[in-house]
Amino acid sequence: MLVLITYDVNTETEAGKKRLRKVAKACQNYGQRVQNSVFECIIDPARFKQLQSNLEVLINKDVDSLRYYYLGDEENARVEHVGAKKPMDLKGTLIA
Amino acid sequence: MLVLITYDVNTETEAGKKRLRKVAKACQNYGQRVQNSVFECIIDPARFKQLQSNLEVLINKDVDSLRYYYLGDEENARVEHVGAKKPMDLKGTLIA
Repeated sequence: MLVLITYDVNTETEAGKKRLRKVAKACQNYGQRVQNSVFECIIDPARFKQLQSNLEVLINKDVDSLRYYYLGDEENARVEHVGAKKPMDLKGTLIA
Repeated sequence: MLVLITYDVNTETEAGKKRLRKVAKACQNYGQRVQNSVFECIIDPARFKQLQSNLEVLINKDVDSLRYYYLGDEENARVEHVGAKKPMDLKGTLIA
């Protein structure tokens, strides 16, 4: 399944900057970075549960947030990219 | 239809900071901000075309990017939010 992870980490403190780096690193082990705080993961449910628990202990839930968008089968995902740093197409239907 | 818009705008310059504000403002007229650079829009195709053209003249395509994720009917969208600033549920199935 294809899951999109987007996150906001409050970087007003050094601890926040550290959390941001760790969240990005944790995502990098499971998927592709497509924008600064956006990752696409083609992943099975068990491994995704693992990633979720890794991420959720890293963030400060009072000031940071994670969003997971379940996009179904990667073949059917409809995604368009406009502008710089177009990432590799994770088998989704990258239209533009 | 529900469309997710994510964007990265290079803010190393004053012009970039201005572009970022304008992109956010343009999105706000059509949808809900769910994270700093992430908007959800329940929108019909014609209005979405209008939003796209508004956004695509605002960004600098050499250094900024926009991604559009077509999530289908808002009723079927599977979205999870963990942490701060949980936005209102745009009729999607906000699971957590």
